[in-house]
Amino acid sequence: MGPDLSDKRVAILVGEGFHDGETFFPMAHLVNHGASVSVVGLEPGIVEAYNSDMTVRVTHAVSAVSIDDFDALVIPGGRSPAWLREHDEVVMFVREFVDSGKPVAAICHGPQVLVRAGVVEGRTLTAVGGVEDELTEAGATFVDVPLQQDGNLITSRVPGDLPGFVAAISGAIAP
Amino acid sequence: MGPDLSDKRVAILVGEGFHDGETFFPMAHLVNHGASVSVVGLEPGIVEAYNSDMTVRVTHAVSAVSIDDFDALVIPGGRSPAWLREHDEVVMFVREFVDSGKPVAAICHGPQVLVRAGVVEGRTLTAVGGVEDELTEAGATFVDVPLQQDGNLITSRVPGDLPGFVAAISGAIAP
Repeated sequence: MGPDLSDKRVAILVGEGFHDGETFFPMAHLVNHGASVSVVGLEPGIVEAYNSDMTVRVTHAVSAVSIDDFDALVIPGGRSPAWLREHDEVVMFVREFVDSGKPVAAICHGPQVLVRAGVVEGRTLTAVGGVEDELTEAGATFVDVPLQQDGNLITSRVPGDLPGFVAAISGAIAP
Repeated sequence: MGPDLSDKRVAILVGEGFHDGETFFPMAHLVNHGASVSVVGLEPGIVEAYNSDMTVRVTHAVSAVSIDDFDALVIPGGRSPAWLREHDEVVMFVREFVDSGKPVAAICHGPQVLVRAGVVEGRTLTAVGGVEDELTEAGATFVDVPLQQDGNLITSRVPGDLPGFVAAISGAIAP
């Protein structure tokens, strides 16, 4: 039956220009296994994918939630991470989440938010190739693998990595 | 903020060999807008996608649910429809659902189940091209369009049609 995520609460951090599959696959997987998923963003409302006409409803402003409300944080890719990390309240939320030791999972361009949050120094991460330089400049070790887990940081590269990515998230939430 | 699907209950009919995006996109969209989504299949357990390593958990056996439990039915594509329609309890459930007048949405190979359920005669549907012949043989009018709505039947062709498909489902549930 797979992992039991009943009573688990997960935040997915999404903004304008999100990647549709990298958002919907983890969301569906987590809900399908019993978790409660909240879409957290800059403010409540509809945002659009950059790679299709799909939309998603941001249900919670990051300023209105606490890391205590969630058991894990997922940061999908697309153009949304570069946009989100220009906002201090987002960056602070992510930093606090990583520092708490709870699982934080980022795929594709998602790790860009981790760089801005200043939490990658000395850690080993993967990401889409275009993020390699800023990761290494921020003191991280970049590896080109489908899934990298370093402590509470779970990272993947591209949509094709999603099966392992979502399984790792589930495994981290309900070991 | 998009459609409000609070208190709405949707069944997604899935079996071995489902198409990952055609299952996860509607699931995530519906949940994101407030609906409760149940994955209905032949029996509870894990089934695998045919086009990736993604899995989904069937939460309810079709024999253990009633059409009264749901406000709409979604039938994703892949190889799952051809497999599901070999089982009488699935076919009966789908026939009863369509006859009830509640929205039934099928994409790609999903309409194969509608053919076996005997509910397409005199109706206009779309589907992936390979299903055209059996639709017309069953008395349906086949149209090659991204989205076709005929009464309570909502149909689409391919993953690229998903944005309109999921919007039509939401619109039918919460007009």
